[in-house]
This record gives sequence, C-alpha cells and structure tokens, in this order.
Amino acid sequence: MHTVNLDLATEEMQQRISGHQVRFETVFQDYFRSLIETFDAPELSRFTPRCLRLVEELSLRGGKRQRVAFLHEAANLAGTRDMDAEDVAALSIELLQTHLLIHDDIIDDAPLRRGGPSTFYEYRADFPEHPQHALGLALLAGDLAAFLAIRVILDSGLAAELVWAMLSAQVTAGIGTFTGQIFDLERDFNGLPSMDLLHSVSDYKAGRSSALAPLQLGLLTAGEDPADHDATLRRYAWAFGVSGQMCDDYLSLFGDGAVTGKPTSADVVDGRFTYAIRKTVVSASNAEKAFLEVVLAKEEASEVDVDTVREIALTNKVDRLLRDEMHRYAEMASTEAATWRGQWNEESVRFFELVPVWGVERAL
Amino acid sequence: MHTVNLDLATEEMQQRISGHQVRFETVFQDYFRSLIETFDAPELSRFTPRCLRLVEELSLRGGKRQRVAFLHEAANLAGTRDMDAEDVAALSIELLQTHLLIHDDIIDDAPLRRGGPSTFYEYRADFPEHPQHALGLALLAGDLAAFLAIRVILDSGLAAELVWAMLSAQVTAGIGTFTGQIFDLERDFNGLPSMDLLHSVSDYKAGRSSALAPLQLGLLTAGEDPADHDATLRRYAWAFGVSGQMCDDYLSLFGDGAVTGKPTSADVVDGRFTYAIRKTVVSASNAEKAFLEVVLAKEEASEVDVDTVREIALTNKVDRLLRDEMHRYAEMASTEAATWRGQWNEESVRFFELVPVWGVERAL
Repeated sequence: MHTVNLDLATEEMQQRISGHQVRFETVFQDYFRSLIETFDAPELSRFTPRCLRLVEELSLRGGKRQRVAFLHEAANLAGTRDMDAEDVAALSIELLQTHLLIHDDIIDDAPLRRGGPSTFYEYRADFPEHPQHALGLALLAGDLAAFLAIRVILDSGLAAELVWAMLSAQVTAGIGTFTGQIFDLERDFNGLPSMDLLHSVSDYKAGRSSALAPLQLGLLTAGEDPADHDATLRRYAWAFGVSGQMCDDYLSLFGDGAVTGKPTSADVVDGRFTYAIRKTVVSASNAEKAFLEVVLAKEEASEVDVDTVREIALTNKVDRLLRDEMHRYAEMASTEAATWRGQWNEESVRFFELVPVWGVERAL
Repeated sequence: MHTVNLDLATEEMQQRISGHQVRFETVFQDYFRSLIETFDAPELSRFTPRCLRLVEELSLRGGKRQRVAFLHEAANLAGTRDMDAEDVAALSIELLQTHLLIHDDIIDDAPLRRGGPSTFYEYRADFPEHPQHALGLALLAGDLAAFLAIRVILDSGLAAELVWAMLSAQVTAGIGTFTGQIFDLERDFNGLPSMDLLHSVSDYKAGRSSALAPLQLGLLTAGEDPADHDATLRRYAWAFGVSGQMCDDYLSLFGDGAVTGKPTSADVVDGRFTYAIRKTVVSASNAEKAFLEVVLAKEEASEVDVDTVREIALTNKVDRLLRDEMHRYAEMASTEAATWRGQWNEESVRFFELVPVWGVERAL
C-alpha cells in the first residue's frame, strides 16, 4: 500500500489549492456581475434579480473548491494549458454544483448549507406565510443554475468540438448525480444496506460530479481525450468519492456543526443509512441494535436519541473504524494517481496523490 | 385585420397535426425503449427505472403536440428538410416540456396533469407515508428530463454547428421559461396586475418554449438561421403565447375539468391573477369587487366561493369578453404569419396563419 508523508505535503497543497481558489473567486464574481447586468428578464420583475443573487450568494459561499482545484490540476497534468477554457469549465462545474445543492436542500428540507441558510430557507424567510411559494422559487433557482451551467459553456466561444465534449461531460455528470440522489433516497427503504450499495451511491452521487467530471474537463481543456484514460480516472474518482462520502458521513455524526455548517443530527433524525450509521448498527451489541432499530425507524428522532446513537457509536469505536476505512480508500485513490507518474506532469501527479489523504486529514 | 375561414381549414389542420403526432409517437417510444435499456444506473436500483417510466408516461400522455407540429411546419417553411434532425429536435422539445410540467406541478402542488396524476402525485401515491420522499423523487424526475432534453441533442451525431445552435435555442427557452415562472409567482404579490404584466408572463412562461423555440429549431434543422427572422418570429410567438395563455386561463375558470384534465377551481382557490380573474375583477361592480377581494386573498377559497366568482364573471360577460380578446391576439399572430407568404413554403405559411384561431376554436 502506497503511503504519503503529509507533513511535507501540507504547505504545498494549501498553496496550490488557495491559488486556484483566488483565481476562481475573481472569475465567478465577474461572471455574476455580467450575468445580472445582461439577464433577459421582464423589466417589472423584482423576483428575478433576487433569484440570481441567491444563486450567486450560495455559489460564492463555497469553501475550498475541491472541484475547481481538480480541474486546474488535471489540465496541468497534460501540459498545454488554455486558461480561458479552464475558467469556463470552472464556472460550469460550480454552477452545476450550486444547482445540485439547491435541489438537494429541498429534497432533504435542509435549513443550512455551507454555513449559511440554504436557498430554500432563504426563501422561507422571504415568505414566512407562503411556504409553497418559497418551495417554488427555490426549485426554479436550482433549475436556473443548471441551465446557466450549460449556457456558460455554449456561450464561451471555444472551439465547437471542445464545447461538445465539455457539455457531454457535464450533462453525463448531472444525470449520474440525479441517479445517485434517487438511489440515495431508495437506500433507506430496504433495511441495512450493503457496503457495495453505499459505494455505488457515493460514486453516482458524489464521485462523478465532484471528481470524475472535473478531471475529464481539465484534460479536455488541455487537448487530451479523457476517454483514453477512462478506467484509471474512474478508479480514482470512485475511491476518492467513497473516501469523501465516508468523511462527510463521519462529520455529520461526530463533527462540529459550527465547522461543517450543517446540524450533526440530521442523518439520525431522518434515519439515513449513511456509512457512519451502517457501521454503528453493524458494530452494536444485540441490545444496542434493538434500540437503533427503533430510533432509525422513527418519523423524527429526538436530540436525546441522537446523543444515545452517538454514544453507542463511540463505545464501539465506530469513529476510529470509519477513520481507518476512509484512509484506506484515500490511499487507494493515491495509489491510482501514482500510476500516472512518468506519463503526466509530476507536480500535478503529486497533487492527485496527496490530496485524498490530505483532504481527509484536513476535514477531521 | 386579417380573418380566416375556419370551415375550410379544419380538415386540413387536423390532418397535418395528426400526421406529425403519429410520427412523433413512434420516435418517442423508440427513444424511451432504448433509453431504459441503456441507462447507466446502479444495478440494484429499482427507483431509477420507475423514475424513467414516469418521465416516459407523462411525456407520452401529451395531446395534440402543438410544439412538435410547429417544429415540423417551421422546417417545412424553409424547404430543405432533415427528418433525423427534426426528430431529435422534437424529442428535446417534448422532454424539456416534460421537465417544465413535472416541476410546475410541484410548484403548484397540482394533483392532475394531462388528464392523469401529476408525477408528484404519482410519487405521493407510491409513498403515502413519506411526502418528502415523493417531493424529492418528483423533483429529480424533472431534473432528469431536463438533462435528457440536452443530451438527446448532444448525442444526435448531427453536425457540430447545428448541435450548438439547437442547444442554444433550447437552453435559452428553458431559462426564459424559468424566468416566466418566477414572474408568474411574483404576479400575485402586487395586487391587480396590468395587462402588460400578464402579457409578459405569458411570453416568458409559454410563448418562448412553446412557440418561439419550436419555430427556431424547425428553421435550424432546415438550414435557415432563425436570427435572420428574429423580429417576426418573436411577434408571432408573443401573440400566439398571449392568445394561448388567455385560452388556458379561460378554460381553467369556465372549462370542463373532465376535458382539460385539471380542476376548474385551482386559480380561484389559490387566488391567482390570471387573465380571466383579472377581467372578472375589472368588470365587477363595487359590491362584487369587495367580495372578490376577500375571496382572492383567502388562504384557500371554498368551492362555494369558486362558484360565486364564476357567477360574477358570467354576469359581467367575462367569458365573452375573454373569448373576443383571445381571438384578437390569435388574429394578430395570423396576420404576422401572412407576411411570410412568398418568401416561404405556402402550405406551412397557411398552417401558421390558420393554427392560432383554429387552436382557440378547438379548445373552447
């Protein structure tokens, strides 16, 4: 098994990622300034600019921009950079992500996202007496973000073949993610899910839009055909996605809500069979299992229930077991990236080798 | 003012429209057969095929396929037909429409659509105990239909420039429609809307995706640049959209729910300022106005309220006034199409000349 010295890597990673982040903030702000100025809306409409502002606000509230970093580093793998194309791809990736988050928060009825109100709950605050209007407007804000993610590529003026390939990657990522979200809702209707099933949810729901598509888009902008590297890219995205989903699930049971920007009880309250909940059930004694079964089947579990579930998990060392496991998958991605050495640019090979473990370490 | 002899036109229109319809049914069924066979979903997922089936079912439940007829007739205007490209455009148009309907029925919490259950209510029947799951799955079904509308063009194998132009038309239509839906929700927050405001809602919400985009796509598939005819196409789509929206609003107050496939009370119950409700308020006596104000401001008006509103409307001849008005706008579209005579194929010029008035007559 390939291992990584993180002490040496931390500063390098931090620098690379914040470089991408800074570039992106400017690109995104410019994009929204021009979008809001030129958007074709009825003159009388006040709701349309409000909607665009909410899409902008949630988009800009993004944190470390892992997807954008993947995009630029993937472009740098291949060598010949086209920064204009990369900026277009970055906008599309983050707009699609905004779409997914807005709709995901409607699906989960989630009040918080990225440390602030979800778009749905922004609208609920706008219309305290009209929850149905709030729902409708949030849904439309999400639809708008999805179509803007497509339009930014269409309107880029890039070569027709590149536009086609970038759109294909994004549309495939979107469809994969919807399928993953459907499968995610299905997961909780069939009792304790297998690990394979959870991996499959992670891959469709997160791996494809957050890792695979940015990798593909980066290579495309640098003139490479990602189809030539399909198997290795998918293996990397798969292991990265599984590790990342485990990390999210870990944080949403054991994390600090003030840091994650989400309540740490939602998965238990809603009886979701995440990696963390699954491992808690599997590791529990028979008496604990009986209790967990009752709590997870409840319409809405209480805060006391949540605390007891967390205690059971900690008693059975689920936190440590899950940390070990997410490290294993992060190392698996890292090992995959190491096979790229020689054929691709060393500094970005090193980035992809370090980032899975670094990401997990940083989050915990 | 241009007028039309409908007795002569009826049989011809019926034939042309049902010709397009028959072709389309086969194309759509083939598309879904192949989609469901080849769709990339986790093997274990049962919810994904169910979702595709619901998208298919609502799509196939469409009636006269006005958009598809517009597409083929617009292609025929220009002369050089490319039936493969037209079929791709037809699929994309109807998939986008399915997306809009699925999400619209979530926004309006509408149980019925096209004479059957809305996708949202299909899911509510699947999950009577889990309305939030039903909402989530319906939302995802809509998202999926939107991305399929894009992908069907991307995967068509048509020339890159045509693909680009078709996608641009569809994405612009989608964004216009979302804007119209946002404006539609805004309409009811500012008291009695002006006619200009209602026209603007109609144009964005209906005219652009149902008339303008099919016209543009038809011309594109025949090798014409719709930008060369932008002003006249927009005038036509605008007047057709306004007339069609008046017709919808008329039917939803005065129509037969068994025919329209929607309850005839929803607009009053939800206090929506449609063309029909606006005209009822404007034409009412002071005493009636006072009553209407109370009913339309209610959280949810009763069936008795709805009947009284309808009575007030009929007393003041709102039905006749609205029929006259929708005819005026239909004639306006017809007059616009008459200017195409000479430069474009006569039989399709005649189609576009006849269809606005014919459509209104047939619906009433």
